[in-house]
Amino acid sequence: MGGSGYAGGEFLRLALGHPHLKVTQVTSERSAGQPVALVHPNLRGRTNLKFRKAAELKEADIIVLALPHGSAAGRIAEFEGKGRVIVDLSADFRLKDPEVFQQAYGEAHPAPDLLGQWVYGNPELRREELRGATRIACAGCFATSVILALYPLLKLGVLLPKDIIATGLVGSSAAGASSSDASHHPERAGSLRVYKPVGHRHTAEVQQELPGHFPIHLTAISTPRVRGILSTIQAWIPDGYSDRDVWSAYREVYAAEPFIRIVKVARGIHRYPDPMLLDGTNYCDLGFEMDMDSGRVVLMSAIDNLVKGTAGHAIQCLNIAHGWEETAGLEFAGLHPA
Amino acid sequence: MGGSGYAGGEFLRLALGHPHLKVTQVTSERSAGQPVALVHPNLRGRTNLKFRKAAELKEADIIVLALPHGSAAGRIAEFEGKGRVIVDLSADFRLKDPEVFQQAYGEAHPAPDLLGQWVYGNPELRREELRGATRIACAGCFATSVILALYPLLKLGVLLPKDIIATGLVGSSAAGASSSDASHHPERAGSLRVYKPVGHRHTAEVQQELPGHFPIHLTAISTPRVRGILSTIQAWIPDGYSDRDVWSAYREVYAAEPFIRIVKVARGIHRYPDPMLLDGTNYCDLGFEMDMDSGRVVLMSAIDNLVKGTAGHAIQCLNIAHGWEETAGLEFAGLHPA
Amino acid sequence: MGGSGYAGGEFLRLALGHPHLKVTQVTSERSAGQPVALVHPNLRGRTNLKFRKAAELKEADIIVLALPHGSAAGRIAEFEGKGRVIVDLSADFRLKDPEVFQQAYGEAHPAPDLLGQWVYGNPELRREELRGATRIACAGCFATSVILALYPLLKLGVLLPKDIIATGLVGSSAAGASSSDASHHPERAGSLRVYKPVGHRHTAEVQQELPGHFPIHLTAISTPRVRGILSTIQAWIPDGYSDRDVWSAYREVYAAEPFIRIVKVARGIHRYPDPMLLDGTNYCDLGFEMDMDSGRVVLMSAIDNLVKGTAGHAIQCLNIAHGWEETAGLEFAGLHPA
Amino acid sequence: MGGSGYAGGEFLRLALGHPHLKVTQVTSERSAGQPVALVHPNLRGRTNLKFRKAAELKEADIIVLALPHGSAAGRIAEFEGKGRVIVDLSADFRLKDPEVFQQAYGEAHPAPDLLGQWVYGNPELRREELRGATRIACAGCFATSVILALYPLLKLGVLLPKDIIATGLVGSSAAGASSSDASHHPERAGSLRVYKPVGHRHTAEVQQELPGHFPIHLTAISTPRVRGILSTIQAWIPDGYSDRDVWSAYREVYAAEPFIRIVKVARGIHRYPDPMLLDGTNYCDLGFEMDMDSGRVVLMSAIDNLVKGTAGHAIQCLNIAHGWEETAGLEFAGLHPA
Repeated sequence: MGGSGYAGGEFLRLALGHPHLKVTQVTSERSAGQPVALVHPNLRGRTNLKFRKAAELKEADIIVLALPHGSAAGRIAEFEGKGRVIVDLSADFRLKDPEVFQQAYGEAHPAPDLLGQWVYGNPELRREELRGATRIACAGCFATSVILALYPLLKLGVLLPKDIIATGLVGSSAAGASSSDASHHPERAGSLRVYKPVGHRHTAEVQQELPGHFPIHLTAISTPRVRGILSTIQAWIPDGYSDRDVWSAYREVYAAEPFIRIVKVARGIHRYPDPMLLDGTNYCDLGFEMDMDSGRVVLMSAIDNLVKGTAGHAIQCLNIAHGWEETAGLEFAGLHPA
Repeated sequence: MGGSGYAGGEFLRLALGHPHLKVTQVTSERSAGQPVALVHPNLRGRTNLKFRKAAELKEADIIVLALPHGSAAGRIAEFEGKGRVIVDLSADFRLKDPEVFQQAYGEAHPAPDLLGQWVYGNPELRREELRGATRIACAGCFATSVILALYPLLKLGVLLPKDIIATGLVGSSAAGASSSDASHHPERAGSLRVYKPVGHRHTAEVQQELPGHFPIHLTAISTPRVRGILSTIQAWIPDGYSDRDVWSAYREVYAAEPFIRIVKVARGIHRYPDPMLLDGTNYCDLGFEMDMDSGRVVLMSAIDNLVKGTAGHAIQCLNIAHGWEETAGLEFAGLHPA
Repeated sequence: MGGSGYAGGEFLRLALGHPHLKVTQVTSERSAGQPVALVHPNLRGRTNLKFRKAAELKEADIIVLALPHGSAAGRIAEFEGKGRVIVDLSADFRLKDPEVFQQAYGEAHPAPDLLGQWVYGNPELRREELRGATRIACAGCFATSVILALYPLLKLGVLLPKDIIATGLVGSSAAGASSSDASHHPERAGSLRVYKPVGHRHTAEVQQELPGHFPIHLTAISTPRVRGILSTIQAWIPDGYSDRDVWSAYREVYAAEPFIRIVKVARGIHRYPDPMLLDGTNYCDLGFEMDMDSGRVVLMSAIDNLVKGTAGHAIQCLNIAHGWEETAGLEFAGLHPA
Repeated sequence: MGGSGYAGGEFLRLALGHPHLKVTQVTSERSAGQPVALVHPNLRGRTNLKFRKAAELKEADIIVLALPHGSAAGRIAEFEGKGRVIVDLSADFRLKDPEVFQQAYGEAHPAPDLLGQWVYGNPELRREELRGATRIACAGCFATSVILALYPLLKLGVLLPKDIIATGLVGSSAAGASSSDASHHPERAGSLRVYKPVGHRHTAEVQQELPGHFPIHLTAISTPRVRGILSTIQAWIPDGYSDRDVWSAYREVYAAEPFIRIVKVARGIHRYPDPMLLDGTNYCDLGFEMDMDSGRVVLMSAIDNLVKGTAGHAIQCLNIAHGWEETAGLEFAGLHPA
């Protein structure tokens, strides 16, 4: 549903190459009747599907909602009759608490009774809940980069209960496929634009998912990249702890994770996570560096906002939910140089 | 008139720093009432002017029309009563022949009788006509880069009467300040998009201005740059001629030109014209290289499309028309690195 | 051999994901002893291989030479003893005629007697010769983009025997992995640099591979992209022919080609080939537009210089040589947006 | 001295256009004998000067040192005999305390006795000391962006004495004119590279210049821009204070500053400081936003690292030192779009 946007397009790319998924229908009100490959030109020669209207939706095993934020929740009954498994890429079902939703999104949740049925779609934190899940609320992109960097450290008590500050450098695709004055190339190409210095909505899901009750503050800046998020996270380590404890925490929690890589290299030019290397991949690269004098630790977390931040994450959740190989359809290694 | 677009904004930047010009009013229907610096944020602290509606235009010594193509000609009487000197940055009054206009722009010229009163605004070719001129039709940007490269060679017979092909690499600002699907940053940032392989409208003014009746063919490609045009022009030199003759022709015709530089350097990395070095400047850098085996010569021509291609060219024309120092207000050297 | 460069790295990326290839050793004199993933950070978690010195090379079924131009030919005996199939990614064995080689590369070929044993590695032109081939000289990147656009039209006589001009817009990765003054980011990021206005070495292989004896002229310009080549090719169609004949020729010759797509769309913003869509893919996208007045046709051809221009082309040749599925290992669809 | 680098080149550009400065000699060991315009191609047609060796330096009213960090201090006697006024663009004379220097730069200061003679070259903080000054140690670029954002707030007590965190997004020109693996375009163009997560050397001068003894932490990230620094600074406001107090503090301290602009706009797309608008200008644009719930304030500070961050700052200091108009030679407004 809503397959003409960037999240939908990326899900299509991944689903068309997935060994266990078959794409049977794609909706778009705006592009109904047009070939999918006209809107997503990378799919030329890969699919002959045409967009249809939502009203023409037929039953399917899995329905993926790639609708604008706020659109899915109000129409959810419409989809529940059509598919056993529903994956929502929007923010509509991520938050458990309707009041938190209202505070973050400025309006009452249209279906608060359903919130409990949805699993927050983050495999690293909620793999067990995802097995067999039929309602998956895919995690937000900036939130994912922050959560994955902090989770092991907060879980294992490697951070002080002090304000944590996350600064996200975000590519232009995160704002979606619709053009605007702000996305006009001459205004955007050379820009470093702070678009959310305070009050970022993903704060709510970050705080919901992370253990402890640390205050976490987000600042979001758009960069000239198209894809990718690089988050640098400023936090504080207790006396007596060192970067070895950070290493240990990451290793303990993420050792078996197929899509988490610790990137902390002493030589060469690629020492820390860099979204440049992740376009099209489902990796989350994590790194860190410590200032021994102050106990400050800088965590670095890079993802492709459309893959590990959205559509790839969704595929990974579906793989877990169905008991498929967790990496199925997500094998692309990324390009270098890129 | 029409000061909220990129051509208008660039004219404002230059006029505000010009020793003999004073900007008294700026119109914009869309932004009327708003400060100029809200739309052109580089002018913060440089002007307190606000946009007004065209209907509020008062008399002025000079009126500059930065309206969309096709808008100026139909309303020209409106402006003629208000200002002694009129400079049009659009294509409306560039062509002498109404039939050529109709062929290039697809509609009859609304004021064909006036065409003869306008001087084509290219100082290098028409400096004498520009002295004291009161109607200046500023040259097109791609056209300027092509005309300035070819003029001396065609004038002095250094080229064979064979098809000439000009390929222009154009920055995104050339398409104007309005956003569109094509200008959406994620679709444009990495793109090399052939947007006019054949049929470019500037062909008409190039052919009007250049001596001889050689067929000249234009292809236009948009690049990830915001400003600038780099034209590479493929032409043919008669037997017995060499690149020395190209040198001589350029020197003979352009020796005294303040804004033409011949760039052909044997060492280093900046051997030929490059629009990177010209952002904000009024220069046209020209270079060339010859293939002795085939007699093919490749001319290279770089400008900033908004300066030498539009607003700076207009200032230069005004300087000539009023007898001011020709470089007044156009002193910026450009940045390196940039 | 020479796996620390960009061509070698890209071959590794593709080979590591190939169903029938297993990478057993990688050499690099400069990086011997270091993990491959230190130099090619996209391969983190994909391989534990370390670079070894060429002197340590052991026997293998296939040896791929990713050495600098001029290095392979002089050492070819060294490799012939080690592998049954040899693929050379350099220019050393592409030209059949040692005199043409000498003219293009400025020195005598060190092994002229061997030139006849090598197949020019272009599947679309030489698929039959490639079946079972054991010596494959992989085609040049700019040459490939030009050859694939022109071949059907020259073969079927859809072009006039007139000068053809190809202008290539080339990404920075084409100059290799070694830094230089010219590749220094501040000097290169905003640059449109004509680096080979005349005298491009690929002219020789273009003329060798294309039918007829038309003069073909190349101009190469570096752009701010990292990957990709967009070639616009100016040619001439005989009276009585039209763009339908171009369509027919492409269809006739390329109908069954898995990696050639004709891109010529009437609507939307992706009307012609654009390298933006091809990063990481093995496609060559071809388009064209005709100027009916003059008979000029503009061909457009886009590839990823490191994939269809080098390493992907090599994989495709190996697939043919071994009788494997021709698309094996080359399934990546490319990203949008990118 | 050392005029072939980016800082030297930018100083030359500004000095050549300055009404009261005349450039009489430029040194470069590497480029001695070559025209300045070969290295700084934006100066073509602006100067005929050639580089000479340092040994050939003659007396001058003002000597500007644009040498690598660590080179000026050891040779300072050499220059003191040649010029009455010395401006050092490096870090050598910025710190007052030799021990702090040793800690930050890892070696003993070669001329500790002289440190007291130098004025830290920041006009907004040290205008009075700069009047008539003959030794000016120009401030660091990242430091300048941080100091100018924080100074009024710390001076007037508008911030809590809590850890302050500054994240700087830095253009590639900040690393200088010499190419390296890290600056190789294919490795850098798409990169968001954290190059100094902790331990940035500018911390020392930030702490020296700012009132109070707050801990200030710097993280530096390189971006795909060539010029510019955008710093976002996370700090905390006491209970009972609000963003009005931030406004007031900036107004009180900076009301008369010619190069400080407060950028905080409710409408449009240019709401906060953006280095895109500052290339070539001497402005420091400051903005801020507050999170009322937590008392967190995010300060935003943008400069061109080569102008307000280096050479323009130096010109401004020289203007003050000599009693010239403070904006002389620094009139460029910046480009939009850019």
